[in-house]
Amino acid sequence: MRFEVRVSFKPGVLDAEGNAALDALKSLGFKASGVATAKVYYIETAEPQARVEEMCRKLLANPIIQDYRISKV
Amino acid sequence: MRFEVRVSFKPGVLDAEGNAALDALKSLGFKASGVATAKVYYIETAEPQARVEEMCRKLLANPIIQDYRISKV
Repeated sequence: MRFEVRVSFKPGVLDAEGNAALDALKSLGFKASGVATAKVYYIETAEPQARVEEMCRKLLANPIIQDYRISKV
Repeated sequence: MRFEVRVSFKPGVLDAEGNAALDALKSLGFKASGVATAKVYYIETAEPQARVEEMCRKLLANPIIQDYRISKV
């Protein structure tokens, strides 16, 4: 089975890469008012979704500053 | 308008972060056979989609090794 795990920053947490991308877009002449980033992991696994949750908590996401969303794809 | 840009590696390109995540998941006792990664940018902009394409080509993606997919969200 294939799961998609999307890891994003919690609201209010500094997204340095998003801010850098926004600055760069503006300096290239694009009009943009905000850029946020997220990381996606596509995981091929025979484990059930509850175990994918565990993967997120133990490895893929930092629960202090990040949220994650799991979906089957 | 808000666009989602998803940047992933072209097939056959080494996904070092995905491979590292796979190794780490296995070492933690999870059964997984593959991990691939992608980066998502959420862009708030008044520009049309053709200009978002241009953002991808000029800044957000490396067309030699990466594919990108743009969607309105």
